[in-house]
Amino acid sequence: MSQVANGELDVGAAKDQFKHLSFEDIGFAHIDHHRSLRKGFPEVIFGQGKSCEQITGILDIMKDREQIILVTRIDQDKADPILDKFADAEYFQDARLLRLQKSPPKITGVGTILIVSAGTSDIPVAREAALTASAMGNRVETIFDVGVAGIHRLFAHRKMMEEASVIVVAAGMEGALPSVVGGMVQAPVIAVPTSIGYGTSFNGMTALLGMLNSCSSNIAVVNIDNGFGAGYMASSINHVAAPR
Amino acid sequence: MSQVANGELDVGAAKDQFKHLSFEDIGFAHIDHHRSLRKGFPEVIFGQGKSCEQITGILDIMKDREQIILVTRIDQDKADPILDKFADAEYFQDARLLRLQKSPPKITGVGTILIVSAGTSDIPVAREAALTASAMGNRVETIFDVGVAGIHRLFAHRKMMEEASVIVVAAGMEGALPSVVGGMVQAPVIAVPTSIGYGTSFNGMTALLGMLNSCSSNIAVVNIDNGFGAGYMASSINHVAAPR
Amino acid sequence: MSQVANGELDVGAAKDQFKHLSFEDIGFAHIDHHRSLRKGFPEVIFGQGKSCEQITGILDIMKDREQIILVTRIDQDKADPILDKFADAEYFQDARLLRLQKSPPKITGVGTILIVSAGTSDIPVAREAALTASAMGNRVETIFDVGVAGIHRLFAHRKMMEEASVIVVAAGMEGALPSVVGGMVQAPVIAVPTSIGYGTSFNGMTALLGMLNSCSSNIAVVNIDNGFGAGYMASSINHVAAPR
Amino acid sequence: MSQVANGELDVGAAKDQFKHLSFEDIGFAHIDHHRSLRKGFPEVIFGQGKSCEQITGILDIMKDREQIILVTRIDQDKADPILDKFADAEYFQDARLLRLQKSPPKITGVGTILIVSAGTSDIPVAREAALTASAMGNRVETIFDVGVAGIHRLFAHRKMMEEASVIVVAAGMEGALPSVVGGMVQAPVIAVPTSIGYGTSFNGMTALLGMLNSCSSNIAVVNIDNGFGAGYMASSINHVAAPR
Amino acid sequence: MSQVANGELDVGAAKDQFKHLSFEDIGFAHIDHHRSLRKGFPEVIFGQGKSCEQITGILDIMKDREQIILVTRIDQDKADPILDKFADAEYFQDARLLRLQKSPPKITGVGTILIVSAGTSDIPVAREAALTASAMGNRVETIFDVGVAGIHRLFAHRKMMEEASVIVVAAGMEGALPSVVGGMVQAPVIAVPTSIGYGTSFNGMTALLGMLNSCSSNIAVVNIDNGFGAGYMASSINHVAAPR
Amino acid sequence: MSQVANGELDVGAAKDQFKHLSFEDIGFAHIDHHRSLRKGFPEVIFGQGKSCEQITGILDIMKDREQIILVTRIDQDKADPILDKFADAEYFQDARLLRLQKSPPKITGVGTILIVSAGTSDIPVAREAALTASAMGNRVETIFDVGVAGIHRLFAHRKMMEEASVIVVAAGMEGALPSVVGGMVQAPVIAVPTSIGYGTSFNGMTALLGMLNSCSSNIAVVNIDNGFGAGYMASSINHVAAPR
Amino acid sequence: MSQVANGELDVGAAKDQFKHLSFEDIGFAHIDHHRSLRKGFPEVIFGQGKSCEQITGILDIMKDREQIILVTRIDQDKADPILDKFADAEYFQDARLLRLQKSPPKITGVGTILIVSAGTSDIPVAREAALTASAMGNRVETIFDVGVAGIHRLFAHRKMMEEASVIVVAAGMEGALPSVVGGMVQAPVIAVPTSIGYGTSFNGMTALLGMLNSCSSNIAVVNIDNGFGAGYMASSINHVAAPR
Amino acid sequence: MSQVANGELDVGAAKDQFKHLSFEDIGFAHIDHHRSLRKGFPEVIFGQGKSCEQITGILDIMKDREQIILVTRIDQDKADPILDKFADAEYFQDARLLRLQKSPPKITGVGTILIVSAGTSDIPVAREAALTASAMGNRVETIFDVGVAGIHRLFAHRKMMEEASVIVVAAGMEGALPSVVGGMVQAPVIAVPTSIGYGTSFNGMTALLGMLNSCSSNIAVVNIDNGFGAGYMASSINHVAAPR
Repeated sequence: MSQVANGELDVGAAKDQFKHLSFEDIGFAHIDHHRSLRKGFPEVIFGQGKSCEQITGILDIMKDREQIILVTRIDQDKADPILDKFADAEYFQDARLLRLQKSPPKITGVGTILIVSAGTSDIPVAREAALTASAMGNRVETIFDVGVAGIHRLFAHRKMMEEASVIVVAAGMEGALPSVVGGMVQAPVIAVPTSIGYGTSFNGMTALLGMLNSCSSNIAVVNIDNGFGAGYMASSINHVAAPR
Repeated sequence: MSQVANGELDVGAAKDQFKHLSFEDIGFAHIDHHRSLRKGFPEVIFGQGKSCEQITGILDIMKDREQIILVTRIDQDKADPILDKFADAEYFQDARLLRLQKSPPKITGVGTILIVSAGTSDIPVAREAALTASAMGNRVETIFDVGVAGIHRLFAHRKMMEEASVIVVAAGMEGALPSVVGGMVQAPVIAVPTSIGYGTSFNGMTALLGMLNSCSSNIAVVNIDNGFGAGYMASSINHVAAPR
Repeated sequence: MSQVANGELDVGAAKDQFKHLSFEDIGFAHIDHHRSLRKGFPEVIFGQGKSCEQITGILDIMKDREQIILVTRIDQDKADPILDKFADAEYFQDARLLRLQKSPPKITGVGTILIVSAGTSDIPVAREAALTASAMGNRVETIFDVGVAGIHRLFAHRKMMEEASVIVVAAGMEGALPSVVGGMVQAPVIAVPTSIGYGTSFNGMTALLGMLNSCSSNIAVVNIDNGFGAGYMASSINHVAAPR
Repeated sequence: MSQVANGELDVGAAKDQFKHLSFEDIGFAHIDHHRSLRKGFPEVIFGQGKSCEQITGILDIMKDREQIILVTRIDQDKADPILDKFADAEYFQDARLLRLQKSPPKITGVGTILIVSAGTSDIPVAREAALTASAMGNRVETIFDVGVAGIHRLFAHRKMMEEASVIVVAAGMEGALPSVVGGMVQAPVIAVPTSIGYGTSFNGMTALLGMLNSCSSNIAVVNIDNGFGAGYMASSINHVAAPR
Repeated sequence: MSQVANGELDVGAAKDQFKHLSFEDIGFAHIDHHRSLRKGFPEVIFGQGKSCEQITGILDIMKDREQIILVTRIDQDKADPILDKFADAEYFQDARLLRLQKSPPKITGVGTILIVSAGTSDIPVAREAALTASAMGNRVETIFDVGVAGIHRLFAHRKMMEEASVIVVAAGMEGALPSVVGGMVQAPVIAVPTSIGYGTSFNGMTALLGMLNSCSSNIAVVNIDNGFGAGYMASSINHVAAPR
Repeated sequence: MSQVANGELDVGAAKDQFKHLSFEDIGFAHIDHHRSLRKGFPEVIFGQGKSCEQITGILDIMKDREQIILVTRIDQDKADPILDKFADAEYFQDARLLRLQKSPPKITGVGTILIVSAGTSDIPVAREAALTASAMGNRVETIFDVGVAGIHRLFAHRKMMEEASVIVVAAGMEGALPSVVGGMVQAPVIAVPTSIGYGTSFNGMTALLGMLNSCSSNIAVVNIDNGFGAGYMASSINHVAAPR
Repeated sequence: MSQVANGELDVGAAKDQFKHLSFEDIGFAHIDHHRSLRKGFPEVIFGQGKSCEQITGILDIMKDREQIILVTRIDQDKADPILDKFADAEYFQDARLLRLQKSPPKITGVGTILIVSAGTSDIPVAREAALTASAMGNRVETIFDVGVAGIHRLFAHRKMMEEASVIVVAAGMEGALPSVVGGMVQAPVIAVPTSIGYGTSFNGMTALLGMLNSCSSNIAVVNIDNGFGAGYMASSINHVAAPR
Repeated sequence: MSQVANGELDVGAAKDQFKHLSFEDIGFAHIDHHRSLRKGFPEVIFGQGKSCEQITGILDIMKDREQIILVTRIDQDKADPILDKFADAEYFQDARLLRLQKSPPKITGVGTILIVSAGTSDIPVAREAALTASAMGNRVETIFDVGVAGIHRLFAHRKMMEEASVIVVAAGMEGALPSVVGGMVQAPVIAVPTSIGYGTSFNGMTALLGMLNSCSSNIAVVNIDNGFGAGYMASSINHVAAPR
């Protein structure tokens, strides 16, 4: 049963090894040029906590090699100088997302990703998920404002839900919608809690806890307000059977 | 606009005053003999943290004046000597409730109280609520195991829900059932979180938070596993229009 | 952009079924036209997290069919353009509530709802409860600034408390007032914690926990600062015996 | 005691509608006979908080209609009488899972599900995930004890990781392993925190928080120690492209 | 042992009763005119959450009957109009306290109250305590910036500490100073945690917890940043043996 | 204003210094022989987490020099061998306190310490406070089971409360009793939260938070279930004006 | 500034690479045979959550190659069969640590590690630290029961503290001792919170928070009750200048 | 074994004693003139919560006696007047640190301190650590943006890591980087959590918890965003073998 691993150093493994090793160190960031090779998707820049100069610096280096670059969690005032500088850049204010896109992505995902929001106030997070999934090569549809307090609104869309290959559900307050959706479909559901609410909503913690304790089992959860992660994960799932 | 309150001391107020003042001090407890007068319901003994001797001592003093006495949160081993001593006593193991009852209570509540549980494991809390509401003079009905992950089970009982005057909903895990029920009816809903669950259910805290943040507004919440309080509150509500 | 969802409404469906199904999808919101039928009260717009444009858009669609519409948690600067546009609109600054009302509501509740605040600083929440209960067709009275540290102030109003059919108590800091009030009356008490306090008041969490652990049993609790929910729940209770 | 609820099933209802409505009410449980139809998988009995009698009662009704039934979170002493009564039953002690299986499930998932554990102590949770995924018709492989403090152990298995269609990673303590795995593959990763640790591990809360805040984006999370949910979700994902 | 309490209604008790009952209801506040009689100290206005108009309204009614009035937690911009209107008013900016004082209070406390701060940043809270204790008729001394990381600074003041009748200690961060002081003296120590710190100081919660778990036993604690309460409590203690 | 502290080393300070320095190191403990000199009270042994052998070892060394020794938080099974060995030892089971006393302590405190409990279940903590205060030379009186839900029971004891020099109030659940008591008297109130309750009582945390946020200001708080600390602090206060 | 890393694959790096790659996979564990080479210390087995069989299995494989093996967090009943089987094994009950040692370790650390405990109850954690540091080749000294409430006991040992190269301080309750020690010395202090205390000590969380917020800066903290980690870290520090 | 400590008062100890006693009391601060003697490093001014006047006042007194003074947590607007007044002052905006330095510090530490950051956003904290360690006489190197999601970036710097005598690792989000680094080296690792992240990162609490629960044992942790403390602690460690 014992087996000594002396592993990846033989000649044949070198090429495979190589794709883990090429990057560029520009002092305040290590930029990864083989990431699309390795992960099937370009670097995404997490905008929060970075200065406009840092973001621009990274974009300058990346922009020639990548088809699509996303900058997430970027406010209008940081986005403006970037929009001025890069002709391909578009800014989506509600989703606080900036996109540089040479051409629309090819659809590579096998099915449709459905994005559902419980309330009107949850739409920004749902939009971030939708834009991310689109950029990663997926067909995306949306249904907004179908929370559990008026559950018949949800049921009117049952067919759409049953045909989706993955469903992302964004909900704040008590976060109950993913449980109900999960109970109605076979597809995997990515639940994304939002910080919508007040008092004991604890900025989304209550919704998160509700989703983690769902009595439906085809549900997994991402961080509060993490629309980007929900869209990314949904795309990963929608590419499970796609040719790599 | 200014008004000096020098209030309740005139002669006419004395009788009203009186009902607040008669009780008996037996050292480890102050027993309240005018409570049925004042609150419309006999003293309930909170069993947890009291010794069997203390409970028996209190029952000895109360038993002749009261039609019904409840002892809540009492385990089988504390209940057994009491059952031996008091012929009228009955013990309900799942609800951990002991009842001394000379005769069944008269129905005084105006409508029906419906007790709903999300899962099989929530039944003990639901039963405590049902026994309490019954003892306080209400018609009580129950529906068990109709959680949100298979929401069609709930919908099959819609008529019963729409006809209830008050609904108590016991749920653990994500605690989403009261939101769905609240969205379907006009009646007030008393939500009682249970400690059923594991991990991030935090012994009922997640269910409680979910209920407090419900997007349905005809909902109010009691403490975790407080079936007694839920039944008591439901009875208060069901007596709002009853002659006092 | 507007699109009527007429989902599963094949001919065989019951009339009872019908009242759950009619709503309008305007993209960012699903507006429910049968809600007054089903719930006995018009849609309330939760203002927080919605843009002024979204609120105006929803009001435009609703305003012809509804007698009264409430917008909650709306700040002065979002309210101003709405006040300019809709002649019937009134704004209540302390309660952060906007009301569109064609005529005063008919009194349909069976008794009087009493709203009590522990301190002067809790009045905004108490006012939100009072305005909501009024809009739903209830007689409403108020007592403000009668906290437990000077408990004689409360006792001077005992008669008013004993005659109310439901009592709403708003309190911050230690949140002890509902326990004392609950011990003095038979009526159900809706406790609403406020975020008044500092340090370990944790923005109302301490008051909430105190209320959930009350040694009085005719108490149930709503979310922190949820004056709207407290008023709504009180109205539900006050209509338990009302003809529907 | 058994009573078939046939609710809204008037003639006009669609066949699609039908699959949401058939279940059996046995008092303490509503058993769902169309669940395999609707969800593609038989009812799973959540053993925790249910008595041995309740579990046996549910199994009695289900056993003739289902190919495979799982009972989760069931201890040895509750499992023993069930093993005595049902010849097909097997008990897996470390995973605290009981399985009734008429024949091994057909492989219907499109790829391989890989289950990884960070430490030896996380194996029970990993095993629960593996048994669940197997029962749902998936090829399953495992790698145990490859935590981040000796990260070369993980790298020796890179090929296996890159070939999996879905990866489940169970980890306690700081919960860092899913981040590292997620950075190495394109496949979706289901992270399941375990309660292994002490002090500030807070029974798995620290691992959970670490996973939710992963800087890898192809990760979603389930509840602490929820090996069942992780396996179920992985199977949902592995069936996204499977014929339904 | 049994004793029926039918209490306070005999004629002789009326005068004693009376001092609990006189107050004035001005709508948004109940002003207590017998408080100095009952509590030995005038009403203190908790400024936070009250408008400038409300504070002025209360002062107008109180100012003729009281020797000293304090308004706590009041910012400069709310204080300014009050300073303009009331000639006797003084504002202490660091302590955020406003005082109306006709003449300096008579010293009635039996010993000296010593106020100690751990750091320079804790001085505002310490000052609020000192001003409160002074206003209540006590001799007050102060020592600032003597935290435990350089404990010899504290020891240089040992004589002053040993001679004080009560000591108030204000400390943020780890809140360890009261433990050390408490171990050096016989006098009671009132520990007041401050919100000074960052990260896991959790706005004073860490200091509070440290103080509650002190291994010295002559310590009791007040709310975070509650300099007023610390000074008030210290004065209560310093008057225990004073003639009332 | 600048002043160099070169402090305590002159000859005259040596005697004063000396009382800080004499103790005995027995390996697992440093026993302090000058503590009664310095603190006016003998060493108290915190029993929790110490073995019976360790406690006995410490008692052996102390017993000849001290009039009274207390061992707190000691269970019956650890107490039994000590009771066998030391003739003067007495064990108080409800308070989990063991006392070695050569003769009753002389009354040195200036007034009476009143110990109040909210419920019957809070009596053990109240008893620990009472025994501690008695051992430290104070007159002690008690009132038990006078919680806020039946507040008239409390008012019947107003005279006793007004005459006490210090009041200790033990309460679990919502912990509201100290606020009400504090509003009725001038004396300082030591509030001691108990772990009585369930669900969101969080083992006394809710009561603690309630007490810290009291709207009465003559209140300070000790740790949950810290009856010893409450009694000790009360005694410190009752000796403020006593000759040292 | 830009620099392409194409890294470790040249021939010269192979030997260095090699030390990261040799381990043995025995199914439930990956045993690392090059760990002493790489980390300078043998594998330590974390006993908690492992069965006796698993621990024995790992020891069987390791025992021939290693001079010293430690098993931490192992209870007496799991230790007994191991003591029977391995002649070199010793068990330290208070520290819950088992040691297999062929010969005492050579002293390789440059100075002395001093282990200090605040109370008698903290000794088990302090002992685990001491045994770990000894096993790693360090001179170790100890001082127990010198908490801040009697701070003169600590000062009597100042010389010992000033001569230590690293100090480990174990403390529960308020966790203040490391701050005081840190203020007295230049050496780095490793603070280890213990779970000693009750109520708001929250099983060591309060001590941990106190230590993280220390106003002394030569302090870093390990997990609650992590005596092993404290000893290990202290040894790492004491070997910084040792020849590797 | 018993030993009476009557300690440090003999004549020979006076000089040693003296270094603990000299400081200056300027009212709002006690300035410690012997600190460099005692601790080997000048006073550091914690800027947060201090006014510009207070900081300037302290600098005026210190500046003539100290080679280097640091002011931490000081914003640009408070720094500006100080830069105007003191010619030697430099301000580092990202680290929010102000330094007065007469001449560069002499290198006294024995090895190199390596500062690593997980992301670009963690650089400010890493810089504060680097500047502090430099000011204390250490060689410092840095590697930025090498988080665990692309772990090959980290491995490219392995040699630098293996040669460092101490490593400081700053990381936000899941805080996993110190575990990976700790597993690769023998040197002690000081982990400093940053408040970078959102949602359940809880302002750094998640990173902190991850670090405390690391499965690598050569790690200790400082407070969130405490770059200063991390640099200070690293310097302490790097001076363990330095001549004092």
